[in-house]
Amino acid sequence: MTGPAPAAATRARRDRLRGLLRAAELDALLITDLINIRYLTGFTGSNAALLVVTEDTQKSLDPVGTRTRFCTDGRYTTQSAAEVPDLPRLIGRPCDRALLALAPGGAVGFEARSVSVADHAALSAAAADAAAKPQLTATLDLVEQLRAVKDAAEIDALRRACEVADRALAELIESGGIRPGRTEREVGLDLDQRMRVLGASDPSFETIVAAGANSAIPHHRPTGAALAIGDFVKLDFGATVDGYHSDMTRTLVLGPPADWQRDIYRLVHLAQRAGRDAALIGASGVAVDAAARDVIAEAGFGPEFSHGLGHGVGLQVHEAPSLARESPSTMGQDMCVTVEPGVYLPGRGGVRIEDSGVIRPDGYHVLTLTSRELCVL
Amino acid sequence: MTGPAPAAATRARRDRLRGLLRAAELDALLITDLINIRYLTGFTGSNAALLVVTEDTQKSLDPVGTRTRFCTDGRYTTQSAAEVPDLPRLIGRPCDRALLALAPGGAVGFEARSVSVADHAALSAAAADAAAKPQLTATLDLVEQLRAVKDAAEIDALRRACEVADRALAELIESGGIRPGRTEREVGLDLDQRMRVLGASDPSFETIVAAGANSAIPHHRPTGAALAIGDFVKLDFGATVDGYHSDMTRTLVLGPPADWQRDIYRLVHLAQRAGRDAALIGASGVAVDAAARDVIAEAGFGPEFSHGLGHGVGLQVHEAPSLARESPSTMGQDMCVTVEPGVYLPGRGGVRIEDSGVIRPDGYHVLTLTSRELCVL
Repeated sequence: MTGPAPAAATRARRDRLRGLLRAAELDALLITDLINIRYLTGFTGSNAALLVVTEDTQKSLDPVGTRTRFCTDGRYTTQSAAEVPDLPRLIGRPCDRALLALAPGGAVGFEARSVSVADHAALSAAAADAAAKPQLTATLDLVEQLRAVKDAAEIDALRRACEVADRALAELIESGGIRPGRTEREVGLDLDQRMRVLGASDPSFETIVAAGANSAIPHHRPTGAALAIGDFVKLDFGATVDGYHSDMTRTLVLGPPADWQRDIYRLVHLAQRAGRDAALIGASGVAVDAAARDVIAEAGFGPEFSHGLGHGVGLQVHEAPSLARESPSTMGQDMCVTVEPGVYLPGRGGVRIEDSGVIRPDGYHVLTLTSRELCVL
Repeated sequence: MTGPAPAAATRARRDRLRGLLRAAELDALLITDLINIRYLTGFTGSNAALLVVTEDTQKSLDPVGTRTRFCTDGRYTTQSAAEVPDLPRLIGRPCDRALLALAPGGAVGFEARSVSVADHAALSAAAADAAAKPQLTATLDLVEQLRAVKDAAEIDALRRACEVADRALAELIESGGIRPGRTEREVGLDLDQRMRVLGASDPSFETIVAAGANSAIPHHRPTGAALAIGDFVKLDFGATVDGYHSDMTRTLVLGPPADWQRDIYRLVHLAQRAGRDAALIGASGVAVDAAARDVIAEAGFGPEFSHGLGHGVGLQVHEAPSLARESPSTMGQDMCVTVEPGVYLPGRGGVRIEDSGVIRPDGYHVLTLTSRELCVL
């Protein structure tokens, strides 16, 4: 179920990056963050570097200094030929220095969050030795900026990742996999395995299964605790498909719900709806968060909603933008974000409802299709 | 099945580190690599820093500058209290800067492979603001050096990780899980799930299942290809238990082996034995590699053994020391290493046999207990 990003998509991403490089007056960018390299080339291996030249002359025959190039090591010769068919490739180690030796003169950016102090020392020496004498220049978040807005291939991958998670949960419920006596850990393993069989390369993160009082712990690791009648069972999980991470939470109840369970479920459900309705192009991450938070605060449970409302999802399960009380983000078209309010009553239980979705001109389109109504097992 | 390292073990590790800090004339070391932090404290979360002060006065009442301290963020308040009961804790963000503000004067090391250029800029500013005016000093591999030699708690965790992998393979074979018609991917998912049910937090790495001609690819990702009579089936996998990674390879044959299969299996078996016999205290990584490689080369298959003989295993699945044609390593007591020669015949098939084990005064003790005889299914 994994496949390279289409060459047309990665080429368009590199062209958008060149726009940012021009604005930053950079002659090239040396990319060493593997997730950014995957985004810009489709390469999925564990060692690579990419030099994107701002004014690339694809038709130039000059072998030095004018070409965007990809580098990996000998383990990936075959794989990189399939995944990165459209870029000149070098095979060698260390990849970052091999590419810097071919960089153009002028300002060559590097990713200051990705390059270690030790690697920077080696790159500086390589720059001094390079023919064109590039000037290394620290940059922050250039590719990450682009990644916040998804293209069609990415939204399709996320949709498929959401579908795997939705189907795995439906199968788990239909097979009776969520039942009294089973442990949180057994339920988590069962759900994870179903996602893998349905085509996930892996869960998006360590699956949360939290039953009874444990459901009041926002990020709970599954334990040997057995599910019991009357428990809330909170499941927070996702599937990784073609490198894209879905993220969803549903909270079910085992047996007839108590009044307090119905009440907080209804409240979180309303807040989640308010958050989805507010996730509009141009809204700030603070405003979307507030739309959901206000519903919960007005009901008197403000302190019991102790985390942010949501985050971007994509090649990482947490990425830009941020929907939270403090956030620098503004919602843009085709950003993919989660909306996940919760209310947690220590010692009793908690509810979170989370969807992944995409921001469109007419509003937030959910990609998570499982019902948000209270499911009583 | 996961649990913190015993406090006595982590304290002893910090004391050994202080010996290295004295030798390097450092007054403290700021540790930001999460695996090194786990090694020195037992903490398993995703955000932390640790300041180890060389001349720590545990009984000092001076609140500033003389104490070894641990820092994490609010998500890990409860978890860090359980996992790191024996160190003063700060809760805050960013952890590295919060600790640097409390560092002693003098030379304070940082991990130059772990700290990014962006983080280093922020740390430098924090050092200038700190009361004691610490001098940031780049260091390389101080904790990694210690980690190459395992203590009793680590060897015990590795032994349990090896046992999970051994048992999962035995169950897979006994249940008929390796049979003609099943795909590589199905076999891999089955094996991985058995390891999880037996207590692994995860496989040590992406499990390799390579059947028929695919077994000639040293690092093959499982595909939809079906196993067939006459195939070699190579399984390279491991279990993660309490953070420690086992690593083993077995190559089986489906149905009666052909003569060429018996021959190369016997050769790899002999080479693996020679490698284990050579893994003695004081031997160089080059010499141990050569002991196995010579057996294969003398039989005329030197070029078909295209990778190194082995590597350290521990909190990472590949760590120091290295057993290879080029290696800076010397074997020391209680180092844990793999021994994994292979012979790969492109288009036909390949054999690798790999154990994890520990170097003791009387030789290499295997921790992988599955038989190394040719298993015919």
